Amino acid sequence: MPSGGPEIEQLIQLLARLPGLGPRSARRAVLHLIKRKDQLMVPLSAALDRAVVAVKSCEVCGNVDTISPCSICADPRRGESGILIVVEDVADLWALERAGVGQVRYHVLGGVLSPLDGVGPDDLNLEGLIGRAGDYGEVVLAMNATVEGQTTAHYITDRLGGTNLRVTRLAHGVPVGGELDYLDEGTLSQALRARTEI
Amino acid sequence: MPSGGPEIEQLIQLLARLPGLGPRSARRAVLHLIKRKDQLMVPLSAALDRAVVAVKSCEVCGNVDTISPCSICADPRRGESGILIVVEDVADLWALERAGVGQVRYHVLGGVLSPLDGVGPDDLNLEGLIGRAGDYGEVVLAMNATVEGQTTAHYITDRLGGTNLRVTRLAHGVPVGGELDYLDEGTLSQALRARTEI
Repeated sequence: MPSGGPEIEQLIQLLARLPGLGPRSARRAVLHLIKRKDQLMVPLSAALDRAVVAVKSCEVCGNVDTISPCSICADPRRGESGILIVVEDVADLWALERAGVGQVRYHVLGGVLSPLDGVGPDDLNLEGLIGRAGDYGEVVLAMNATVEGQTTAHYITDRLGGTNLRVTRLAHGVPVGGELDYLDEGTLSQALRARTEI
Repeated sequence: MPSGGPEIEQLIQLLARLPGLGPRSARRAVLHLIKRKDQLMVPLSAALDRAVVAVKSCEVCGNVDTISPCSICADPRRGESGILIVVEDVADLWALERAGVGQVRYHVLGGVLSPLDGVGPDDLNLEGLIGRAGDYGEVVLAMNATVEGQTTAHYITDRLGGTNLRVTRLAHGVPVGGELDYLDEGTLSQALRARTEI
């Protein structure tokens, strides 16, 4: 055990469980914190304390926020477009918000269907989606372009079938700034099939 | 601004200041924390609170610990070898402890001499070293093999000159597991000059 006492050792072990940090980088992070006690360690400790108390999951959409319904669900302008975007995870919601997709609402599934991992429909926030989808004119299935993501999208499309809802998915194609030479064949052939007039 | 409220945003910004984490990985880390509130976020918050209170810098050697003098300085067996290892940083002390270098004591300089960055002898924990070096039979200068590290080692050697102290440095050579083909010429020529009998 490295010296430093159990308090430091425990901090290292907890930080090492964060994604992107391993035991070595957690040690560096803890030393960084200790050296910047007043500027970083104390504020981080206080911010974590506040977040533990304040952060909750939105009862409507599954987003994380300090209020429930979350600020997006509580904003009436967000409902006017009639667009509900279904995402796997809160990280995807944040990514779409950063992209500035406009006045839309979201629904966070909390995962994807994955029989191999034992994740079935009951493990996802699907009933909530079925219940509220009728309030919107269009449901955009923005799952990841993985097998599980697309399986989940098909399942939701089936469940929403027979209603007047418009169900759409994100376009596949060449990423902005991407080079054709580095793209996989599936993306390239999808991009060609979905070509548009200039 | 991504949704989530100021508490979440502030937590992301503070975590992004840790080495090894940027804005993107800090967001992932915060979501990871929020999803594992009871298993990870609450314990991490408590561990940080405890560390803020408990962690201090050892008044003798500059190590970080929850007691001062630190557990290494307070351990009488550590003094019996008569070996004092001088390191730049607490991270180097931890690395040597992990390597199991034995019953030695340390002295943490808290940096290296670097005129370009405005770091002079007064900015380092040098007087403490001069004061306690006489209590040991040998001082090992374990600075990094950089220009600044070696300059600092020369400076300390000069300052300790005229005493009966044995002043040594770490051996240079081929890293264990290293391949000659990938080593720089300086290391290789040092390794050849310092060759030993098998």
